[in-house]
Amino acid sequence: METFKYDAKGLLTAVAQDIETGQVLMVAMMNAEAVALTRATRQAHFWSRSRGQLWLKGETSGNVLDVEEIRVDCDRDALLLLVRPRGPACHTGNVSCFFTTLEENI
Amino acid sequence: METFKYDAKGLLTAVAQDIETGQVLMVAMMNAEAVALTRATRQAHFWSRSRGQLWLKGETSGNVLDVEEIRVDCDRDALLLLVRPRGPACHTGNVSCFFTTLEENI
Repeated sequence: METFKYDAKGLLTAVAQDIETGQVLMVAMMNAEAVALTRATRQAHFWSRSRGQLWLKGETSGNVLDVEEIRVDCDRDALLLLVRPRGPACHTGNVSCFFTTLEENI
Repeated sequence: METFKYDAKGLLTAVAQDIETGQVLMVAMMNAEAVALTRATRQAHFWSRSRGQLWLKGETSGNVLDVEEIRVDCDRDALLLLVRPRGPACHTGNVSCFFTTLEENI
């Protein structure tokens, strides 16, 4: 069984990327339980720091992320989820949470 | 001037994605100084938690990430850097730090 490098709070960073379009959809945290549930169900689960609870992404909206593949980075503290989103990944209705470009300087 | 939502340690998550290929290259942390330097120089700077210092990605290897565009997510605690890498982004020599696919379960 693989081991991951969780931080002091037992979390690692997960990036969800659309496997078809390559678009980076969202970044969220996972604890060990979220990782296990994601792997077992093939649907992305995260740990909400603000709410202090585990959540199935799309539980309310229906916009689940079906996980096709999971990659871990070289220092094993971040995961890349290659997903097929069933709808907009962002709670704002945008396809991706990264819909705002910084205008100044760059 | 935009404000970002840094965590209790003054950090946010940054994802570097190749603007040409769409490949997610690496995930690292940034403090406010790393964000400012990245925007000012158009080269990715990060905060190393293990070394406790700011670093210019590629400072030693030469594999700098030239930043074309920066996006911020909906809750302003993560950045997406769209970059042109001058070489492999990973210290292992791999193009991306996410070169390991998890085999079991998924």
